[in-house]
Amino acid sequence: MRLVLLGDLACEQEATVRRKLTTPVEVVPMPGSAPDAERRAQLAEARAIITMRYDRSMPAAPKLELLQVGGTGWDEIEVSWLPPGAVVCNAYGHEVAVAEYVVLGMLLWCTRLLEAERSFREGSWALGGRTGGPLVDELAGKTVGLIGYGHVGREVARRLEVFDTRVIACARRVPSSAGRIDWIRGMDGIDQLLAESDFVVIACGLGPQTHNLIDERRFRLMQQSAVLINISRGAIVDEAALYSALRDRVIRGAVIDTWYRYPTADDPKPRPSRFPFHELPNLIMTPHSAAWTTGMIERRWSAIVANVERVARGLTPANIVYRAPELAG
Amino acid sequence: MRLVLLGDLACEQEATVRRKLTTPVEVVPMPGSAPDAERRAQLAEARAIITMRYDRSMPAAPKLELLQVGGTGWDEIEVSWLPPGAVVCNAYGHEVAVAEYVVLGMLLWCTRLLEAERSFREGSWALGGRTGGPLVDELAGKTVGLIGYGHVGREVARRLEVFDTRVIACARRVPSSAGRIDWIRGMDGIDQLLAESDFVVIACGLGPQTHNLIDERRFRLMQQSAVLINISRGAIVDEAALYSALRDRVIRGAVIDTWYRYPTADDPKPRPSRFPFHELPNLIMTPHSAAWTTGMIERRWSAIVANVERVARGLTPANIVYRAPELAG
Repeated sequence: MRLVLLGDLACEQEATVRRKLTTPVEVVPMPGSAPDAERRAQLAEARAIITMRYDRSMPAAPKLELLQVGGTGWDEIEVSWLPPGAVVCNAYGHEVAVAEYVVLGMLLWCTRLLEAERSFREGSWALGGRTGGPLVDELAGKTVGLIGYGHVGREVARRLEVFDTRVIACARRVPSSAGRIDWIRGMDGIDQLLAESDFVVIACGLGPQTHNLIDERRFRLMQQSAVLINISRGAIVDEAALYSALRDRVIRGAVIDTWYRYPTADDPKPRPSRFPFHELPNLIMTPHSAAWTTGMIERRWSAIVANVERVARGLTPANIVYRAPELAG
Repeated sequence: MRLVLLGDLACEQEATVRRKLTTPVEVVPMPGSAPDAERRAQLAEARAIITMRYDRSMPAAPKLELLQVGGTGWDEIEVSWLPPGAVVCNAYGHEVAVAEYVVLGMLLWCTRLLEAERSFREGSWALGGRTGGPLVDELAGKTVGLIGYGHVGREVARRLEVFDTRVIACARRVPSSAGRIDWIRGMDGIDQLLAESDFVVIACGLGPQTHNLIDERRFRLMQQSAVLINISRGAIVDEAALYSALRDRVIRGAVIDTWYRYPTADDPKPRPSRFPFHELPNLIMTPHSAAWTTGMIERRWSAIVANVERVARGLTPANIVYRAPELAG
């Protein structure tokens, strides 16, 4: 069976894939820099592809059975470009890392640690409570609103339980029991969630229903003391509305790991937005690093390789998120 | 009953004390700037004192029944200067705040967030895993060694459980069951704890047995990848040994909230050590701020005022840590 690693992100894991494979599979790396003709020839024969992105700008893959996404979000897969019967599978393994990052982001806002560290290093005791400085806050007692209650949302909720917070959530699929959280509603509950939350965590997938989900109107529903955390996809939060909300202190602050612009071959070092977010003091900004731990790579690529091997053996792969319709008889 | 608030830290809470009191008590603030004669006159009549420090440099308090410390550590109370029968009580209420700070410190080291934030804000994607940067670490799977297993140690352990870490501890008083942690031994187990831990948390009190507890020899027992977190008292960690261990990368790094030098009337803005810790990149340094949350003040001073009221009513106060011997027959 031929497996194409399509794009740089998949190609980076070539050694990992080869190490984990226990079934004979022909592994073909196809980085962004590969010649078009070669890409066309390889995709024509591919039975499995691992990629983050696949659309009509790329050659067809008529023999494709498995399009395995190298992550959880499959918003860059154009499913109408798949041959009949092909399945799209996604992958997890990042939920531990991302949940840790979310808790870290909340604690940073509560403690004002970034600010205290900077000023103490410069020689000032002004932010020490012991020496007469302002008191800071605790995560205990806060309300955390999770938009999305999938793998990441659940891991966040599990960690928050021991911090004595109140957790509420909105999700596409509402479980029959709220379990450890205070309430969970459908996505129509978002306005209520925003009004009640001290921290709002974007933990849903990007799709037509969630694009610009948090817009200017919804920022105004949030508490002025609230903090937004986005570890999912930039485009779920309206770019201009986020910038204004932070600049004008409509909300207190944000922790943003997922952005609006990413490096490309043509522009390898872009600012992550058309707005100067880097000038804002009330933002903790990271370069899409929350999920990227050694543990995540290990867990995720074990699952990805296992999926490829299932298809190679004629078995059904795990984590199917889409199946292309069979041709009408 | 006369209650003297002795020193600036206690005087800062005068309004809180008055607000919480429900029993008639005469509250006398005595800041550091008060004239000696007045301090002498007031202490001569005091039945209760709230203070962080009391020693032979201060006037005697022959009628004293309760010396209530404004915090947990009572290492600055010279107990031989108390009249017969007086008790020393300490106060808690900081354990939630400090436990949150400890978890935050660990997560900062795992994620390298401070570094990633700084470099991304300057325009670089180099520390983003998604864009080919180095992978970071997770708290999950780490071993955390707690030196001290009192109020703070237990709250840290409770939070770590959901992070899937392994927790080990050494304590003066070893509980009959280790409960949620992997092992707990007496203070003679410290060398073993240091060798096994990814994070070492100083959470014991300062006293003759714990002064310079972590010295040069013990730093060399720690793993080179280990991080030390001190939220207790600076003097538990040998000052010169800590500086060398960080500078020479004997250990990976540290999170230090409690120091060797504090502001005084004569020197209101000292560097926190005679060594230039502020020049070290592998240190997260904060100005004794971990415990200082609004929630801590509320919980702690409720307990302190309740203790004063118990003594005013002839009842035994809570959290007695020392009782001055009665005069022999």
